[in-house]
Amino acid sequence: MRIALGVSYNGQAYQGWQSQPSGRTVQDRLEAALTRFATVPIATLCAGRTDAGVHALMQVVHFDTGIERPEFAWVRGPNSFLPPDVAVQWARRVPDAFHARACAVARRYAYVLLQSPVRPSVEAGRVGWVFQPLALAAMQEAAGYLIGEHDFSSFRAAGCQARSPVKRLMRIDISRRASLQPADTGTQGCPTGYWRFEFEGSAFLHHMVRNIMGCLITIGQGARPAQWMQEVLQARSRSMAAPTFMAEGLYFLGPVYEGVWGLPDRTPAYDWLP
Amino acid sequence: MRIALGVSYNGQAYQGWQSQPSGRTVQDRLEAALTRFATVPIATLCAGRTDAGVHALMQVVHFDTGIERPEFAWVRGPNSFLPPDVAVQWARRVPDAFHARACAVARRYAYVLLQSPVRPSVEAGRVGWVFQPLALAAMQEAAGYLIGEHDFSSFRAAGCQARSPVKRLMRIDISRRASLQPADTGTQGCPTGYWRFEFEGSAFLHHMVRNIMGCLITIGQGARPAQWMQEVLQARSRSMAAPTFMAEGLYFLGPVYEGVWGLPDRTPAYDWLP
Repeated sequence: MRIALGVSYNGQAYQGWQSQPSGRTVQDRLEAALTRFATVPIATLCAGRTDAGVHALMQVVHFDTGIERPEFAWVRGPNSFLPPDVAVQWARRVPDAFHARACAVARRYAYVLLQSPVRPSVEAGRVGWVFQPLALAAMQEAAGYLIGEHDFSSFRAAGCQARSPVKRLMRIDISRRASLQPADTGTQGCPTGYWRFEFEGSAFLHHMVRNIMGCLITIGQGARPAQWMQEVLQARSRSMAAPTFMAEGLYFLGPVYEGVWGLPDRTPAYDWLP
Repeated sequence: MRIALGVSYNGQAYQGWQSQPSGRTVQDRLEAALTRFATVPIATLCAGRTDAGVHALMQVVHFDTGIERPEFAWVRGPNSFLPPDVAVQWARRVPDAFHARACAVARRYAYVLLQSPVRPSVEAGRVGWVFQPLALAAMQEAAGYLIGEHDFSSFRAAGCQARSPVKRLMRIDISRRASLQPADTGTQGCPTGYWRFEFEGSAFLHHMVRNIMGCLITIGQGARPAQWMQEVLQARSRSMAAPTFMAEGLYFLGPVYEGVWGLPDRTPAYDWLP
C-alpha cells in the first residue's frame, strides 16, 4: 500500500532535503526513522527538494510498504526516532496512483525577511535580513512582470535538473507584517519590521525563489527600477540577475494537490511565521 | 558615563543569563563582546536574569565606562563579536541614577505554547507543548486569583534569592492565537494551534512564570478546577503546585521603565511570536 506523510522541519542543521553520503539531510533522517519504525527499509519520494538551511512547513512524501499500521502510528512512531527539529505531521493511506511530486499541481513558498539596522538574534537562521528600507510598490510592480508562464532561465541555478526552464508563476504576495519605529534612531534611520513574500507556482527551478528574492530586494532598495525585473526575465541568462539571496528566510509551505486526494494542507507552524 | 543596552537572544544554546565558570551564558558572551569592543573589561548588570533555555526579546543591562563612542557604535561593535543568536538592539547613554534592575517598575514575560498531537519541529526549542486541548475560560478564571499583591511562595523555586516572596501581578492575558482543524483526525482529536500567555508583574520569583504555567495547564486540561489555583496560592507551599513547566516557550519581553529614562520598549522580534 502507499502512504503519504506531511513533514515539517527546521532546515538550519541540515544539508537540505536530498539524501547524501554524509547522512546530514532531512531525507536521511526521515528514512532512518521510518525504517526503524517499520523494521524494513523504507525509501521516500518528496514533493519538492529543499536546499541546505531551507525550512519546510509541509513537505509531502510518499512510500510503499506492506506493513499495516493505523495512520496515526505512522506519525507517532517515526517521530519518536526523529531529531527534535523534524516531525511527521500527518499520515494518510493513498491510492497507488498518488505521487508526491507528479500529483502536485502547484507549490508554495514563503520568504520571511527582517528589515532592521540590527541583524537577527532570536530568529537567527530563520529569517533573511536587510538593513536598508524596502519600497513596497516597486517590488510589487517588479513581481508583476513574473506572473504567468515564462522561461525562468535567468533565475535558475547552474546545477538545476529540471527538464524545462518554463514554469508558471501564479502569485507573488508581498506584505509588510508590522511597522515599528526604529529601535535605534541614533545613526541609522531604517524602520524595523518583517516582510513576508509568498510565492505560488506550478513548480520552481533550483534557487528560483532565492534568485527572485535577490532581484526584488535590489529593486526594493532602489538600486534598480522595477522594469529591470522584466529585462532580467527576458534575457534568459543567470548572469543578468542579482546574487542568490540567503537561504535562512525561505520556507517551503508545501505542495498543492487536488481535493480528491483528501490530504491536509496546513500545519500549526503556518501561524508561527510573521 | 553610564550606558544602557537592549539585548535580544535565543536561549536554546545557553545556560541562562547569569555568568558561570563554564562561560556558556548570555552574560559571559555579552561581556566578552563588550570588553573586546571597548578593549577594557566591562561588567554588566541586568533587569531580569533568565534561566537556561529561556529567550529574551529585550533584556536590558547597564554598565559604566570612560569610553566615548556614538550610541549606535555600542550596537554595531559588540554585535560583530557576539554569536548569531545574541544581538544588542539599541544603546542609550543614561544618567548615573539609572539602574537596569532597580529602576524597572515592572517586567513582562510571554509564554508561547503549541497545542497539537504532534510535538514541535520547525519551532523546536522555542515553544512549550501540550497534546491535550486546553479550556480557555477555566484558565482565565484561575489566572484571576493571582492578580494583585500576594505571597507567591507556592510558585517559588527552592534556590530563589529574592528578598521577599510578595510580588504584585498586574496582568495575565491568555489568548488562542489561531484555531486550526486537527492536522490529523485519525486517532487524536486535539485541535492544533498556539496559545500565548502574557504576564506583567512588579517582579517575578525564580521559576514563578513556569510554575504558574504548570498550574494553568493542569487546570486547562481539566485535571483540577479553576479554584485550585487559589488553594495553591494560599498554601504558600511549593509542594502544592504543579511541576515547573518547560523553559522552551518562555520569553522575557523586557522590563518596564518610567518614560523619563527615554528607553525603547519594543524590538522587531515582538512581531515574530504568535
